[in-house]
Amino acid sequence: MKKAEIKNLIRKQKIDHTLDQEFYVNDEIFDLDIKNIFSKQWVFVGHVSRIPNFGDYFLFNIGNESIIIIRDRNNKIHAHYNVCRHRGSHICLEKEGNKKLLVCPYHAWSYNLDGSIQSARMMSADFDKDEWKLNGCNLQIFEGLIFINLAEEPNSFEEFISPTKKFIEFHGLSNAKIAHRQIYPTNGNWKLTLDNFHECYHCQPSHPEYCSVHDPEYIIAYGAGNNTGPESEKFNKILLDWNKKVEDMGHVVGEYSETEFNNYSRSAERTPLKEGKYTETKNGKPIAKLMGKFKEYDRGYTSVGTSPFNSLLMCNDFATLFTFIPKSTLKTDVELMWLVHKDAEEGLDYNVDEMIWMWDVTTIADKRIIENNQKGVLSNKYKPGPLSQMEKGLEKFKNWYLKQLDLVLS
Amino acid sequence: MKKAEIKNLIRKQKIDHTLDQEFYVNDEIFDLDIKNIFSKQWVFVGHVSRIPNFGDYFLFNIGNESIIIIRDRNNKIHAHYNVCRHRGSHICLEKEGNKKLLVCPYHAWSYNLDGSIQSARMMSADFDKDEWKLNGCNLQIFEGLIFINLAEEPNSFEEFISPTKKFIEFHGLSNAKIAHRQIYPTNGNWKLTLDNFHECYHCQPSHPEYCSVHDPEYIIAYGAGNNTGPESEKFNKILLDWNKKVEDMGHVVGEYSETEFNNYSRSAERTPLKEGKYTETKNGKPIAKLMGKFKEYDRGYTSVGTSPFNSLLMCNDFATLFTFIPKSTLKTDVELMWLVHKDAEEGLDYNVDEMIWMWDVTTIADKRIIENNQKGVLSNKYKPGPLSQMEKGLEKFKNWYLKQLDLVLS
Amino acid sequence: MKKAEIKNLIRKQKIDHTLDQEFYVNDEIFDLDIKNIFSKQWVFVGHVSRIPNFGDYFLFNIGNESIIIIRDRNNKIHAHYNVCRHRGSHICLEKEGNKKLLVCPYHAWSYNLDGSIQSARMMSADFDKDEWKLNGCNLQIFEGLIFINLAEEPNSFEEFISPTKKFIEFHGLSNAKIAHRQIYPTNGNWKLTLDNFHECYHCQPSHPEYCSVHDPEYIIAYGAGNNTGPESEKFNKILLDWNKKVEDMGHVVGEYSETEFNNYSRSAERTPLKEGKYTETKNGKPIAKLMGKFKEYDRGYTSVGTSPFNSLLMCNDFATLFTFIPKSTLKTDVELMWLVHKDAEEGLDYNVDEMIWMWDVTTIADKRIIENNQKGVLSNKYKPGPLSQMEKGLEKFKNWYLKQLDLVLS
Repeated sequence: MKKAEIKNLIRKQKIDHTLDQEFYVNDEIFDLDIKNIFSKQWVFVGHVSRIPNFGDYFLFNIGNESIIIIRDRNNKIHAHYNVCRHRGSHICLEKEGNKKLLVCPYHAWSYNLDGSIQSARMMSADFDKDEWKLNGCNLQIFEGLIFINLAEEPNSFEEFISPTKKFIEFHGLSNAKIAHRQIYPTNGNWKLTLDNFHECYHCQPSHPEYCSVHDPEYIIAYGAGNNTGPESEKFNKILLDWNKKVEDMGHVVGEYSETEFNNYSRSAERTPLKEGKYTETKNGKPIAKLMGKFKEYDRGYTSVGTSPFNSLLMCNDFATLFTFIPKSTLKTDVELMWLVHKDAEEGLDYNVDEMIWMWDVTTIADKRIIENNQKGVLSNKYKPGPLSQMEKGLEKFKNWYLKQLDLVLS
Repeated sequence: MKKAEIKNLIRKQKIDHTLDQEFYVNDEIFDLDIKNIFSKQWVFVGHVSRIPNFGDYFLFNIGNESIIIIRDRNNKIHAHYNVCRHRGSHICLEKEGNKKLLVCPYHAWSYNLDGSIQSARMMSADFDKDEWKLNGCNLQIFEGLIFINLAEEPNSFEEFISPTKKFIEFHGLSNAKIAHRQIYPTNGNWKLTLDNFHECYHCQPSHPEYCSVHDPEYIIAYGAGNNTGPESEKFNKILLDWNKKVEDMGHVVGEYSETEFNNYSRSAERTPLKEGKYTETKNGKPIAKLMGKFKEYDRGYTSVGTSPFNSLLMCNDFATLFTFIPKSTLKTDVELMWLVHKDAEEGLDYNVDEMIWMWDVTTIADKRIIENNQKGVLSNKYKPGPLSQMEKGLEKFKNWYLKQLDLVLS
Repeated sequence: MKKAEIKNLIRKQKIDHTLDQEFYVNDEIFDLDIKNIFSKQWVFVGHVSRIPNFGDYFLFNIGNESIIIIRDRNNKIHAHYNVCRHRGSHICLEKEGNKKLLVCPYHAWSYNLDGSIQSARMMSADFDKDEWKLNGCNLQIFEGLIFINLAEEPNSFEEFISPTKKFIEFHGLSNAKIAHRQIYPTNGNWKLTLDNFHECYHCQPSHPEYCSVHDPEYIIAYGAGNNTGPESEKFNKILLDWNKKVEDMGHVVGEYSETEFNNYSRSAERTPLKEGKYTETKNGKPIAKLMGKFKEYDRGYTSVGTSPFNSLLMCNDFATLFTFIPKSTLKTDVELMWLVHKDAEEGLDYNVDEMIWMWDVTTIADKRIIENNQKGVLSNKYKPGPLSQMEKGLEKFKNWYLKQLDLVLS
């Protein structure tokens, strides 16, 4: 597909309808997506508690890229491309582990944890160590959340994080630990996967578990974030009352969404759970230690989208963090991390099965849904269909994506 | 490959030789084949007895297309593309089953069995249900055989079926049921798979079972249908005698083959089985109830090709129906259905193993043969070879195919 | 990729650095490699002892090509493409076996072992058997080693073998037998696989077993053949002393490497094993009968590369022969054959596990190394890195390859 063809295709997309088939199945568009959309976003890939000690590392793999996230002797965390500068071998072979020195398993070139060369045997006299450092990757840590950015010249992290800051900070994630981590490999294009996450129109038919902890009026109006469904006067009233009470407690309230097109696609809000629910578990009862600045349970639910590739869904006592990782045109990994207060003890303060129950069962259902969606979208008869009033979030995401892609092709 | 290149390639094909490698291995030619050859034929995909009750359905899958074949409350059978008009999800997920309403598993849009929308929640005020019916697929039923046609403007079914009508009708398939069904996935291009079915030159070395129920002179002259091998005076004599006897019984006789190029590639004939054989089983003894208009066994064998993608091979007491389904450039599914009189009882009137014996063992052998053929055809050294006098059927099929493809490229 | 682009890419390659990514991952370059590099070399594919009797055969498979290597009634060995001239089927379906006549399993065309048609039924009157012989493949046997060449007009075998002749002949391989054979499928481009074999810079960190039988100074200076590492005065002295002793025994000594660019990439030398080692086993003690012209153990190691696709590593009492078979852009089979004196008896004269120990464990390690190398080379961040003083063999191979490819594109 030529640039001009893709630009034409972008023009042809209809308001309040899904995308044309090409966007969900074409390999060239997928490559453009990775290069120009995914690679330009700050993406949350892990929490500092995953690598607590000097030398601890984990790999973040996306397409043919493998990034080493490693903690040095001075507690500084670095991100390096997992590619030896000598002959190109992967240096770290295990998904996670501990290395005090990064030694290439091929010819034993060794690198310090900051990426500088420690030693390389038998090189010629004019070999300059400084020229052959590991390729670094942009990395920023905010509240214990590790964000990376594959761009050569990344957008300002401060600008990026600023509107969602207060929502995240209140939850004290820097004082948290990973209680559970799970990857759900999904046979669907990343945009089809995110379409699913950008609307709650399917929640009622497909997610009884989700519907048991969230108010039906919330699901209609806020299920995929603020301003993504038709307004609900009933829920507005509930929210108003709850906001007052929570403000009195000194807890954060409010909502954010992008008002004009920019490099980001962020949103955030705090809303109450269903009547009688204190957290996102089956019986709705508190499950772990209160996190962050919460002094008492406020029955709130903090939903933050830092980019299309991450969602942070946070209760008072645990947080469920999502990373959507495009693997190939028709494959996406959905990675979930559950965080609790760093002092909470498994078995005593929380039970993993109870905590992961809702999003585990819901993500498994979504995997199935997305895979059946992808099968139909591959048909010659698939044509963009009309969106409902509960799919405004999907329409927003679509428009942001199309403009981003259009910019890139200009 | 450009159109002009393919047209040139078509011109270069030699009389009485196999096709050039490209036709068996090139992905672009495969796509042309599906779009212009397969999708324009009426293809038999199942028998009404597979879905006897209101709501019964089965899926016919070809490439990325999935078609729902379903019986409604009024016993009308419909064919719909298995693609929800909302976001494109597959609607039916199981290969067969029963649905009184077609409810999309994603957002619960529901369709009546005729494809019209029954309900779609939360759509905007200007949503017009009538615009968003399921995409229908052309469907015709003849003698209980379900034919579909993926073309936008299909050829006349009446014109298509007319020359083979009397042969099929005599067997009373509308009064039959499926006794067994089996798919043989074959790693070979669809044309290589059909080449195998268009000649009986390989029967003697490769199919001892087939040769045990058919006369050696029949195999030479009629093994792949009338006018596909050298004439056999001996078999002409046998046929003449048998025709007389059978006409006296009031049974149908005769043969049909295309005399000039047209949209179809059909053939039909009735011939006697080997001396002493009454049906196509190991010992040749009758195995099930007489079907259709047969009042007594006439030892006849009715062979009908409605298109390259179907063959109906029918004895007096059971029928073996073939569907060849191109899956990808190097993959073809061969589906076999065995039909018996609807009142025949398994165990009492017929034994499945005895009935399927010949074509099951023969199709398994052909699968192996075709796969080894494909391996060799992928070699740089493969060049079209000379056809024998027993491969006239293959030459006919090849010429029909080349003309069809040429027309499409004009 | 257009020719001009590849030619430009060739020009851009830097001295003493690895190749650009394209050479290791591009499908079009791989096809060029097979067509113009692999297919023009004489490649050792097996030893005559694998097919001792009339009718014995084995298949050599490379990409979509399958070659039958078969011994006829007069002990002549032939190589034929495994493609029936009639419809293209593979003729031999098993990897090895015995056939007194090559009968195609499809329509029973039969060929004599020299490739001429023995019989083809039912062909038309003008069928000329002589036109439809099996496609032959160039074959030469030297000292029991079977070499094939897929070129239409192969280079002179005599010219090809002449510089390595004396080294091979001394080992009496024509009087040997295969004691063991093993294929190591490797997920890496063939050039990445050969890069690994063209340097011993990785031996010290990666191959403790290899290092236990070879002198550390040998590894530095000769590990990947003569003139592939920095000179070692210490090893020069060892070699000089050993050469004198061995010349006195009447054994062959010396070395060969290409001095100017030509169609070949050959090398050879004889060197001593580590002090105290008699052969390439764990304890270094003799393991089988002396081979060829050796009258006593001389502790020597004969290393011969006839082309990039073969290495012959020979001790006094057994030989390890390597064939590198490119399978696809990212896959290479490494086949090893261990030869012993034809009269040596397993269990009595030699023990297979002891004999294969070093190269089996080393090839398994290299497989892992190459696969991790390939992963990193697929990264966008991979850039050609600087070669060490111990990677001169890799640089030589690279330059020979680039010139060959450049010639082809002219």
